[in-house]
Amino acid sequence: MDDARHIAMETRRLSGGETTHRSDQVVTEAPLQIAINGTPFSITMRTPGDDEALAIGLLFSEGIIQYEPGACTLNRTSENEINIEIPEIYLCTSLREKRTIASSASCGICGKTEFEALKGDPLSTESLAVTTHDVRAMYRDMESAQPTFAATGGCHAAALFVTDGSLLCCHEDVGRHNAVDKCIGRLLMESRLTDANLLLVSGRVSYEIVAKAYRAGTHFLCAVSAPSSMAVKTAKRLGITLSGFCREDRMTVYTHPDRIQHG
Amino acid sequence: MDDARHIAMETRRLSGGETTHRSDQVVTEAPLQIAINGTPFSITMRTPGDDEALAIGLLFSEGIIQYEPGACTLNRTSENEINIEIPEIYLCTSLREKRTIASSASCGICGKTEFEALKGDPLSTESLAVTTHDVRAMYRDMESAQPTFAATGGCHAAALFVTDGSLLCCHEDVGRHNAVDKCIGRLLMESRLTDANLLLVSGRVSYEIVAKAYRAGTHFLCAVSAPSSMAVKTAKRLGITLSGFCREDRMTVYTHPDRIQHG
Repeated sequence: MDDARHIAMETRRLSGGETTHRSDQVVTEAPLQIAINGTPFSITMRTPGDDEALAIGLLFSEGIIQYEPGACTLNRTSENEINIEIPEIYLCTSLREKRTIASSASCGICGKTEFEALKGDPLSTESLAVTTHDVRAMYRDMESAQPTFAATGGCHAAALFVTDGSLLCCHEDVGRHNAVDKCIGRLLMESRLTDANLLLVSGRVSYEIVAKAYRAGTHFLCAVSAPSSMAVKTAKRLGITLSGFCREDRMTVYTHPDRIQHG
Repeated sequence: MDDARHIAMETRRLSGGETTHRSDQVVTEAPLQIAINGTPFSITMRTPGDDEALAIGLLFSEGIIQYEPGACTLNRTSENEINIEIPEIYLCTSLREKRTIASSASCGICGKTEFEALKGDPLSTESLAVTTHDVRAMYRDMESAQPTFAATGGCHAAALFVTDGSLLCCHEDVGRHNAVDKCIGRLLMESRLTDANLLLVSGRVSYEIVAKAYRAGTHFLCAVSAPSSMAVKTAKRLGITLSGFCREDRMTVYTHPDRIQHG
Protein backbone atom coordinates (compact mmCIF):
# COMPACT_ATOMS: atom_id res chain seq x y z
CA MET A 1 0.00 0.00 0.00
CA ASP A 2 1.28 3.44 -0.85
CA ASP A 3 0.56 6.47 1.22
CA ALA A 4 2.19 9.84 1.48
CA ARG A 5 4.71 8.60 4.04
CA HIS A 6 6.10 5.77 1.98
CA ILE A 7 5.90 4.66 -1.62
CA ALA A 8 6.46 1.40 -3.48
CA MET A 9 9.52 1.12 -5.69
CA GLU A 10 10.72 -1.62 -8.00
CA THR A 11 13.87 -3.23 -6.62
CA ARG A 12 16.11 -6.22 -7.13
CA ARG A 13 17.04 -8.19 -4.06
CA LEU A 14 20.34 -10.01 -4.48
CA SER A 15 20.80 -12.70 -1.86
CA GLY A 16 22.83 -15.91 -1.80
CA GLY A 17 23.31 -15.91 -5.57
CA GLU A 18 19.60 -15.39 -6.29
CA THR A 19 17.95 -12.30 -7.79
CA THR A 20 14.37 -11.48 -6.84
CA HIS A 21 12.39 -8.71 -8.49
CA ARG A 22 10.40 -7.01 -5.79
CA SER A 23 8.32 -3.99 -4.91
CA ASP A 24 9.66 -2.46 -1.71
CA GLN A 25 8.32 0.40 0.36
CA VAL A 26 10.63 3.40 0.66
CA VAL A 27 10.16 6.24 3.15
CA THR A 28 9.12 9.50 1.51
CA GLU A 29 11.53 12.44 1.64
CA ALA A 30 10.45 15.81 0.26
CA PRO A 31 11.41 19.41 0.96
CA LEU A 32 9.11 21.53 3.11
CA GLN A 33 9.53 25.25 2.82
CA ILE A 34 8.55 27.11 5.95
CA ALA A 35 7.71 30.78 5.56
CA ILE A 36 7.11 33.28 8.34
CA ASN A 37 4.69 36.08 7.63
CA GLY A 38 5.05 35.40 3.92
CA THR A 39 8.86 35.41 3.78
CA PRO A 40 10.60 32.10 2.97
CA PHE A 41 12.55 31.24 6.08
CA SER A 42 13.79 27.68 5.98
CA ILE A 43 13.69 24.39 4.15
CA THR A 44 13.67 21.04 5.84
CA MET A 45 13.75 17.65 4.12
CA ARG A 46 10.98 15.75 5.79
CA THR A 47 8.51 12.91 5.51
CA PRO A 48 5.15 14.48 4.60
CA GLY A 49 2.38 14.42 7.17
CA ASP A 50 2.00 16.55 10.29
CA ASP A 51 3.63 19.46 8.53
CA GLU A 52 1.87 21.96 10.78
CA ALA A 53 3.23 20.25 13.89
CA LEU A 54 6.67 20.08 12.28
CA ALA A 55 6.70 23.79 11.41
CA ILE A 56 5.54 24.89 14.85
CA GLY A 57 7.79 22.41 16.65
CA LEU A 58 10.87 23.33 14.61
CA LEU A 59 10.42 27.07 15.05
CA PHE A 60 9.72 26.70 18.77
CA SER A 61 12.46 24.20 19.57
CA GLU A 62 15.04 26.24 17.69
CA GLY A 63 14.09 29.30 19.71
CA ILE A 64 12.75 31.17 16.66
CA ILE A 65 9.23 31.73 17.97
CA GLN A 66 7.38 31.73 21.22
CA TYR A 67 4.18 29.78 20.87
CA GLU A 68 1.06 31.44 22.13
CA PRO A 69 -2.17 29.52 21.54
CA GLY A 70 -4.41 31.41 19.15
CA ALA A 71 -1.74 33.96 18.27
CA CYS A 72 -0.53 32.35 15.07
CA THR A 73 -2.20 30.80 12.06
CA LEU A 74 -0.80 28.29 9.62
CA ASN A 75 -1.71 28.10 6.00
CA ARG A 76 -0.49 25.70 3.40
CA THR A 77 0.51 27.54 0.26
CA SER A 78 1.28 24.35 -1.68
CA GLU A 79 1.97 20.67 -1.06
CA ASN A 80 5.49 21.42 0.15
CA GLU A 81 5.08 24.95 1.46
CA ILE A 82 3.62 26.19 4.69
CA ASN A 83 3.33 29.74 6.00
CA ILE A 84 2.98 30.82 9.59
CA GLU A 85 1.40 34.18 10.34
CA ILE A 86 2.61 35.32 13.72
CA PRO A 87 2.77 38.71 15.47
CA GLU A 88 6.27 40.10 15.48
CA ILE A 89 6.34 40.19 19.27
CA TYR A 90 6.56 36.37 19.30
CA LEU A 91 9.59 36.23 16.99
CA CYS A 92 13.13 35.96 18.31
CA THR A 93 15.14 39.15 18.22
CA SER A 94 17.49 38.05 15.48
CA LEU A 95 14.56 37.19 13.23
CA ARG A 96 12.97 40.54 13.83
CA GLU A 97 16.31 41.81 12.60
CA LYS A 98 15.66 39.79 9.42
CA ARG A 99 18.32 37.16 9.77
CA THR A 100 17.34 34.22 7.60
CA ILE A 101 18.10 30.77 8.87
CA ALA A 102 17.74 27.42 7.23
CA SER A 103 17.38 23.88 8.39
CA SER A 104 17.50 20.36 7.09
CA ALA A 105 16.25 16.99 8.20
CA SER A 106 18.66 16.82 11.07
CA CYS A 107 19.80 20.32 11.42
CA GLY A 108 19.58 22.41 14.50
CA ILE A 109 22.22 25.09 14.46
CA CYS A 110 21.37 26.22 10.98
CA GLY A 111 21.76 29.75 9.88
CA LYS A 112 24.23 30.41 12.61
CA THR A 113 27.76 31.18 11.57
CA GLU A 114 28.95 31.42 15.16
CA PHE A 115 28.17 28.76 17.69
CA GLU A 116 26.57 29.77 20.94
CA ALA A 117 25.73 27.02 23.36
CA LEU A 118 22.18 27.00 24.68
CA LYS A 119 21.94 29.06 27.84
CA GLY A 120 19.45 28.61 30.61
CA ASP A 121 18.88 27.48 34.15
CA PRO A 122 18.83 23.74 34.78
CA LEU A 123 15.39 22.17 34.86
CA SER A 124 13.94 22.01 38.35
CA THR A 125 15.25 19.23 40.56
CA GLU A 126 11.81 18.17 41.71
CA SER A 127 11.75 14.52 42.73
CA LEU A 128 10.71 12.91 39.48
CA ALA A 129 11.59 9.30 38.91
CA VAL A 130 11.04 6.54 36.40
CA THR A 131 11.94 2.88 36.62
CA THR A 132 13.76 0.75 34.06
CA HIS A 133 10.50 -1.14 33.74
CA ASP A 134 8.67 2.10 32.81
CA VAL A 135 11.22 2.94 30.13
CA ARG A 136 11.02 -0.58 28.67
CA ALA A 137 7.24 -0.25 28.46
CA MET A 138 7.56 3.19 26.82
CA TYR A 139 9.99 1.79 24.28
CA ARG A 140 7.51 -0.96 23.41
CA ASP A 141 4.73 1.61 23.08
CA MET A 142 6.87 3.68 20.70
CA GLU A 143 7.74 0.60 18.66
CA SER A 144 4.10 -0.20 18.10
CA ALA A 145 3.48 3.38 16.95
CA GLN A 146 5.99 3.20 14.07
CA PRO A 147 4.06 2.02 11.01
CA THR A 148 6.40 3.80 8.57
CA PHE A 149 9.47 2.15 10.04
CA ALA A 150 7.68 -1.20 9.96
CA ALA A 151 6.99 -0.71 6.24
CA THR A 152 10.33 0.76 5.20
CA GLY A 153 13.05 0.14 7.81
CA GLY A 154 14.14 3.66 6.98
CA CYS A 155 12.89 6.29 9.37
CA HIS A 156 13.33 7.63 12.86
CA ALA A 157 10.78 8.01 15.63
CA ALA A 158 10.35 10.15 18.70
CA ALA A 159 7.73 10.02 21.42
CA LEU A 160 6.76 12.14 24.41
CA PHE A 161 5.52 10.55 27.62
CA VAL A 162 4.35 11.44 31.09
CA THR A 163 6.61 9.84 33.69
CA ASP A 164 3.72 7.56 34.71
CA GLY A 165 4.21 5.89 31.32
CA SER A 166 1.32 7.47 29.38
CA LEU A 167 2.18 8.03 25.72
CA LEU A 168 1.28 11.59 24.69
CA CYS A 169 2.34 11.38 21.06
CA CYS A 170 4.69 9.58 18.69
CA HIS A 171 5.90 10.76 15.28
CA GLU A 172 8.10 9.33 12.56
CA ASP A 173 10.27 11.11 10.04
CA VAL A 174 13.19 10.55 7.71
CA GLY A 175 15.04 13.10 9.87
CA ARG A 176 15.82 12.49 13.54
CA HIS A 177 15.24 16.12 14.47
CA ASN A 178 11.96 16.34 12.58
CA ALA A 179 10.47 13.44 14.52
CA VAL A 180 11.21 15.32 17.75
CA ASP A 181 9.93 18.62 16.34
CA LYS A 182 6.66 17.02 15.22
CA CYS A 183 6.07 15.72 18.76
CA ILE A 184 6.82 19.07 20.36
CA GLY A 185 4.74 20.97 17.81
CA ARG A 186 1.78 18.63 18.14
CA LEU A 187 1.63 18.97 21.93
CA LEU A 188 2.14 22.74 21.75
CA MET A 189 -0.82 23.03 19.40
CA GLU A 190 -2.90 20.92 21.77
CA SER A 191 -1.69 22.84 24.86
CA ARG A 192 -0.36 19.60 26.33
CA LEU A 193 3.41 20.12 26.15
CA THR A 194 3.62 20.88 29.88
CA ASP A 195 2.34 17.32 30.55
CA ALA A 196 5.39 15.81 28.80
CA ASN A 197 8.32 14.78 30.93
CA LEU A 198 10.17 12.13 28.97
CA LEU A 199 11.40 12.24 25.38
CA LEU A 200 12.25 8.90 23.80
CA VAL A 201 14.13 8.79 20.48
CA SER A 202 14.87 5.87 18.19
CA GLY A 203 18.41 6.84 17.24
CA ARG A 204 21.38 8.63 18.67
CA VAL A 205 21.46 11.81 20.77
CA SER A 206 23.42 14.83 19.61
CA TYR A 207 23.64 18.26 21.21
CA GLU A 208 20.62 19.49 19.28
CA ILE A 209 18.31 16.75 20.57
CA VAL A 210 19.23 17.71 24.14
CA ALA A 211 18.56 21.37 23.33
CA LYS A 212 15.12 20.42 21.99
CA ALA A 213 14.35 18.31 25.07
CA TYR A 214 15.30 21.27 27.26
CA ARG A 215 13.11 23.71 25.36
CA ALA A 216 10.27 21.21 25.62
CA GLY A 217 10.88 21.01 29.38
CA THR A 218 11.36 17.24 29.59
CA HIS A 219 13.50 16.02 32.52
CA PHE A 220 14.24 12.71 30.83
CA LEU A 221 15.77 11.94 27.45
CA CYS A 222 16.13 8.28 26.53
CA ALA A 223 17.67 6.95 23.34
CA VAL A 224 17.99 3.55 21.74
CA SER A 225 21.51 4.37 20.59
CA ALA A 226 24.55 6.37 21.75
CA PRO A 227 24.88 10.01 22.83
CA SER A 228 27.65 12.38 21.79
CA SER A 229 30.04 14.07 24.22
CA MET A 230 28.30 17.40 23.81
CA ALA A 231 24.89 15.83 24.38
CA VAL A 232 26.13 14.44 27.70
CA LYS A 233 27.78 17.69 28.81
CA THR A 234 24.71 19.74 27.87
CA ALA A 235 22.24 17.37 29.55
CA LYS A 236 24.34 17.46 32.73
CA ARG A 237 24.39 21.24 32.75
CA LEU A 238 20.68 21.63 32.00
CA GLY A 239 19.42 19.11 34.53
CA ILE A 240 18.27 16.42 32.10
CA THR A 241 18.61 12.72 32.85
CA LEU A 242 20.13 11.26 29.70
CA SER A 243 20.08 7.53 29.01
CA GLY A 244 21.41 5.71 25.97
CA PHE A 245 21.44 2.16 24.67
CA CYS A 246 17.94 1.61 26.12
CA ARG A 247 17.38 -1.93 24.91
CA GLU A 248 15.47 -4.76 26.51
CA ASP A 249 16.22 -4.76 30.24
CA ARG A 250 19.28 -2.51 30.19
CA MET A 251 20.29 1.09 29.71
CA THR A 252 23.30 3.31 30.27
CA VAL A 253 22.64 6.47 32.27
CA TYR A 254 25.01 9.36 31.54
CA THR A 255 23.67 12.22 33.63
CA HIS A 256 21.53 12.79 36.74
CA PRO A 257 21.16 9.04 37.30
CA ASP A 258 19.32 9.21 40.61
CA ARG A 259 16.02 9.79 38.80
CA ILE A 260 16.10 6.28 37.33
CA GLN A 261 15.41 3.29 39.53
CA HIS A 262 15.34 -0.43 38.97
CA GLY A 263 11.88 -1.82 38.48
CA MET B 1 42.04 5.54 26.26
CA ASP B 2 40.90 9.06 25.45
CA ASP B 3 41.70 10.81 22.23
CA ALA B 4 40.17 13.78 20.49
CA ARG B 5 37.58 11.60 18.74
CA HIS B 6 36.12 10.05 21.86
CA ILE B 7 36.33 10.70 25.56
CA ALA B 8 35.68 8.66 28.69
CA MET B 9 32.63 9.51 30.76
CA GLU B 10 31.37 8.15 34.05
CA THR B 11 28.16 6.19 33.54
CA ARG B 12 25.84 3.84 35.33
CA ARG B 13 24.81 0.71 33.50
CA LEU B 14 21.45 -0.63 34.68
CA SER B 15 20.89 -4.19 33.57
CA GLY B 16 18.76 -7.00 34.94
CA GLY B 17 18.29 -5.27 38.30
CA GLU B 18 22.02 -4.60 38.74
CA THR B 19 23.78 -1.23 38.67
CA THR B 20 27.40 -1.04 37.49
CA HIS B 21 29.48 2.13 37.70
CA ARG B 22 31.50 2.36 34.55
CA SER B 23 33.67 4.57 32.42
CA ASP B 24 32.35 4.52 28.84
CA GLN B 25 33.77 6.08 25.70
CA VAL B 26 31.53 8.68 24.06
CA VAL B 27 32.08 10.06 20.56
CA THR B 28 33.23 13.68 20.54
CA GLU B 29 30.91 16.31 19.08
CA ALA B 30 32.10 19.91 18.79
CA PRO B 31 31.24 22.83 16.51
CA LEU B 32 33.58 23.65 13.65
CA GLN B 33 33.28 27.12 12.23
CA ILE B 34 34.29 27.32 8.59
CA ALA B 35 35.25 30.75 7.29
CA ILE B 36 35.90 31.71 3.67
CA ASN B 37 38.42 34.44 3.08
CA GLY B 38 38.05 35.52 6.69
CA THR B 39 34.25 35.71 6.76
CA PRO B 40 32.41 33.18 8.96
CA PHE B 41 30.42 31.05 6.58
CA SER B 42 29.06 27.97 8.27
CA ILE B 43 29.09 25.87 11.40
CA THR B 44 29.00 22.12 11.41
CA MET B 45 28.82 19.90 14.49
CA ARG B 46 31.54 17.35 13.90
CA THR B 47 33.92 14.88 15.45
CA PRO B 48 37.32 16.60 15.57
CA GLY B 49 40.07 15.30 13.31
CA ASP B 50 40.49 15.74 9.57
CA ASP B 51 38.96 19.19 9.81
CA GLU B 52 40.79 20.35 6.68
CA ALA B 53 39.35 17.46 4.68
CA LEU B 54 35.92 18.14 6.16
CA ALA B 55 36.02 21.82 5.26
CA ILE B 56 37.18 21.21 1.69
CA GLY B 57 34.83 18.27 1.21
CA LEU B 58 31.80 20.09 2.58
CA LEU B 59 32.36 23.21 0.49
CA PHE B 60 33.01 21.17 -2.65
CA SER B 61 30.20 18.65 -2.24
CA GLU B 62 27.69 21.42 -1.50
CA GLY B 63 28.71 23.21 -4.68
CA ILE B 64 30.13 26.20 -2.81
CA ILE B 65 33.65 26.01 -4.21
CA GLN B 66 35.48 24.47 -7.10
CA TYR B 67 38.62 22.79 -5.87
CA GLU B 68 41.79 23.60 -7.73
CA PRO B 69 44.97 22.06 -6.30
CA GLY B 70 47.27 24.77 -5.01
CA ALA B 71 44.69 27.50 -5.42
CA CYS B 72 43.46 27.58 -1.84
CA THR B 73 45.11 27.52 1.55
CA LEU B 74 43.64 26.44 4.86
CA ASN B 75 44.57 27.87 8.19
CA ARG B 76 43.31 26.95 11.59
CA THR B 77 42.38 30.05 13.52
CA SER B 78 41.54 28.11 16.70
CA GLU B 79 40.73 24.57 17.81
CA ASN B 80 37.24 24.80 16.38
CA GLU B 81 37.72 27.32 13.59
CA ILE B 82 39.19 26.93 10.17
CA ASN B 83 39.59 29.49 7.41
CA ILE B 84 39.94 28.82 3.70
CA GLU B 85 41.62 31.42 1.54
CA ILE B 86 40.41 30.93 -2.02
CA PRO B 87 40.35 33.17 -5.10
CA GLU B 88 36.87 34.52 -5.76
CA ILE B 89 36.78 32.87 -9.18
CA TYR B 90 36.44 29.45 -7.48
CA LEU B 91 33.43 30.48 -5.37
CA CYS B 92 29.87 29.74 -6.44
CA THR B 93 27.94 32.68 -7.80
CA SER B 94 25.59 33.01 -4.87
CA LEU B 95 28.51 33.18 -2.47
CA ARG B 96 30.18 35.85 -4.50
CA GLU B 97 26.88 37.62 -3.96
CA LYS B 98 27.52 37.28 -0.22
CA ARG B 99 24.77 34.88 0.68
CA THR B 100 25.72 33.18 3.94
CA ILE B 101 24.83 29.56 4.33
CA ALA B 102 25.09 27.28 7.30
CA SER B 103 25.34 23.59 7.87
CA SER B 104 25.12 21.06 10.63
CA ALA B 105 26.25 17.52 11.20
CA SER B 106 23.82 16.14 8.68
CA CYS B 107 22.77 19.14 6.78
CA GLY B 108 23.11 19.65 3.11
CA ILE B 109 20.55 22.09 1.89
CA CYS B 110 21.42 24.65 4.51
CA GLY B 111 21.11 28.33 3.89
CA LYS B 112 18.67 27.76 1.09
CA THR B 113 15.17 29.01 1.62
CA GLU B 114 13.99 27.64 -1.69
CA PHE B 115 14.66 24.09 -2.73
CA GLU B 116 16.26 23.48 -6.06
CA ALA B 117 17.00 19.89 -6.96
CA LEU B 118 20.53 19.16 -8.11
CA LYS B 119 20.82 19.55 -11.85
CA GLY B 120 23.26 17.79 -14.09
CA ASP B 121 23.78 15.17 -16.75
CA PRO B 122 23.71 11.55 -15.63
CA LEU B 123 27.11 10.01 -14.96
CA SER B 124 28.53 8.22 -17.99
CA THR B 125 27.13 4.80 -18.70
CA GLU B 126 30.52 3.21 -19.22
CA SER B 127 30.46 -0.49 -18.46
CA LEU B 128 31.47 -0.49 -14.83
CA ALA B 129 30.48 -3.42 -12.69
CA VAL B 130 30.96 -4.75 -9.21
CA THR B 131 29.93 -8.08 -7.74
CA THR B 132 28.07 -8.75 -4.53
CA HIS B 133 31.29 -10.40 -3.34
CA ASP B 134 33.21 -7.15 -3.97
CA VAL B 135 30.71 -5.10 -2.00
CA ARG B 136 30.80 -7.56 0.89
CA ALA B 137 34.61 -7.30 0.99
CA MET B 138 34.40 -3.49 0.87
CA TYR B 139 31.95 -3.49 3.74
CA ARG B 140 34.35 -5.63 5.80
CA ASP B 141 37.21 -3.27 4.94
CA MET B 142 35.15 -0.30 6.09
CA GLU B 143 34.19 -2.07 9.31
CA SER B 144 37.82 -2.65 10.21
CA ALA B 145 38.56 1.04 9.60
CA GLN B 146 36.06 2.25 12.25
CA PRO B 147 38.00 2.56 15.52
CA THR B 148 35.74 5.31 16.87
CA PHE B 149 32.60 3.27 16.29
CA ALA B 150 34.29 0.28 17.89
CA ALA B 151 35.02 2.39 20.98
CA THR B 152 31.74 4.26 21.22
CA GLY B 153 28.99 2.61 19.16
CA GLY B 154 27.97 6.15 18.29
CA CYS B 155 29.31 7.38 14.98
CA HIS B 156 28.89 7.01 11.25
CA ALA B 157 31.41 5.99 8.64
CA ALA B 158 31.88 6.49 4.93
CA ALA B 159 34.48 5.06 2.58
CA LEU B 160 35.49 5.55 -1.03
CA PHE B 161 36.66 2.63 -3.17
CA VAL B 162 37.84 1.82 -6.65
CA THR B 163 35.51 -0.72 -8.27
CA ASP B 164 38.33 -3.31 -8.09
CA GLY B 165 37.80 -3.23 -4.33
CA SER B 166 40.74 -1.03 -3.30
CA LEU B 167 39.94 1.16 -0.30
CA LEU B 168 40.95 4.76 -1.00
CA CYS B 169 39.90 6.26 2.34
CA CYS B 170 37.51 5.83 5.24
CA HIS B 171 36.40 8.44 7.73
CA GLU B 172 34.15 8.47 10.77
CA ASP B 173 32.06 11.28 12.20
CA VAL B 174 29.16 11.93 14.53
CA GLY B 175 27.37 13.28 11.42
CA ARG B 176 26.54 11.10 8.43
CA HIS B 177 27.22 13.88 5.96
CA ASN B 178 30.51 14.84 7.55
CA ALA B 179 31.90 11.33 7.16
CA VAL B 180 31.19 11.55 3.42
CA ASP B 181 32.57 15.10 3.18
CA LYS B 182 35.80 14.08 4.93
CA CYS B 183 36.34 11.28 2.38
CA ILE B 184 35.67 13.57 -0.58
CA GLY B 185 37.84 16.36 0.83
CA ARG B 186 40.73 14.03 1.64
CA LEU B 187 40.85 12.62 -1.88
CA LEU B 188 40.45 16.05 -3.45
CA MET B 189 43.44 17.31 -1.47
CA GLU B 190 45.44 14.28 -2.61
CA SER B 191 44.26 14.62 -6.24
CA ARG B 192 42.82 11.09 -6.07
CA LEU B 193 39.07 11.77 -6.20
CA THR B 194 38.86 10.75 -9.85
CA ASP B 195 40.02 7.23 -8.81
CA ALA B 196 36.95 6.79 -6.60
CA ASN B 197 33.98 4.99 -8.05
CA LEU B 198 32.06 3.58 -5.11
CA LEU B 199 30.85 5.35 -1.98
CA LEU B 200 29.91 3.13 0.94
CA VAL B 201 28.06 4.60 3.92
CA SER B 202 27.26 3.06 7.29
CA GLY B 203 23.77 4.47 7.67
CA ARG B 204 20.84 5.51 5.56
CA VAL B 205 20.81 7.36 2.25
CA SER B 206 18.97 10.64 1.89
CA TYR B 207 18.84 12.98 -1.09
CA GLU B 208 21.91 14.87 0.08
CA ILE B 209 24.13 11.78 0.21
CA VAL B 210 23.20 11.03 -3.41
CA ALA B 211 24.00 14.63 -4.36
CA LYS B 212 27.42 14.30 -2.71
CA ALA B 213 28.10 10.99 -4.48
CA TYR B 214 27.23 12.65 -7.77
CA ARG B 215 29.49 15.63 -7.18
CA ALA B 216 32.26 13.19 -6.25
CA GLY B 217 31.61 11.33 -9.52
CA THR B 218 31.01 7.88 -8.00
CA HIS B 219 28.82 5.54 -10.06
CA PHE B 220 27.99 3.36 -7.06
CA LEU B 221 26.46 4.28 -3.73
CA CYS B 222 25.99 1.44 -1.24
CA ALA B 223 24.45 1.75 2.19
CA VAL B 224 24.04 -0.53 5.15
CA SER B 225 20.56 0.83 5.78
CA ALA B 226 17.57 2.18 3.82
CA PRO B 227 17.36 4.93 1.19
CA SER B 228 14.66 7.61 1.03
CA SER B 229 12.30 8.08 -1.92
CA MET B 230 14.13 11.18 -3.05
CA ALA B 231 17.48 9.41 -2.82
CA VAL B 232 16.18 6.71 -5.14
CA LYS B 233 14.64 9.15 -7.62
CA THR B 234 17.76 11.31 -7.70
CA ALA B 235 20.14 8.36 -8.10
CA LYS B 236 18.03 7.08 -10.97
CA ARG B 237 18.09 10.43 -12.74
CA LEU B 238 21.81 11.00 -12.21
CA GLY B 239 22.96 7.56 -13.32
CA ILE B 240 24.06 6.24 -9.92
CA THR B 241 23.60 2.60 -8.92
CA LEU B 242 22.07 2.79 -5.45
CA SER B 243 22.00 -0.24 -3.14
CA GLY B 244 20.67 -0.43 0.38
CA PHE B 245 20.53 -2.99 3.15
CA CYS B 246 23.99 -4.25 2.14
CA ARG B 247 24.45 -6.85 4.83
CA GLU B 248 26.27 -10.17 4.71
CA ASP B 249 25.49 -11.85 1.37
CA ARG B 250 22.52 -9.73 0.39
CA MET B 251 21.61 -6.27 -0.84
CA THR B 252 18.65 -4.46 -2.37
CA VAL B 253 19.40 -2.57 -5.58
CA TYR B 254 17.12 0.41 -6.25
CA THR B 255 18.54 1.97 -9.42
CA HIS B 256 20.66 0.99 -12.44
CA PRO B 257 20.91 -2.61 -11.22
CA ASP B 258 22.75 -4.02 -14.23
CA ARG B 259 26.06 -2.80 -12.87
CA ILE B 260 25.88 -5.26 -9.95
CA GLN B 261 26.46 -8.95 -10.54
CA HIS B 262 26.43 -12.01 -8.36
CA GLY B 263 29.85 -13.11 -7.25
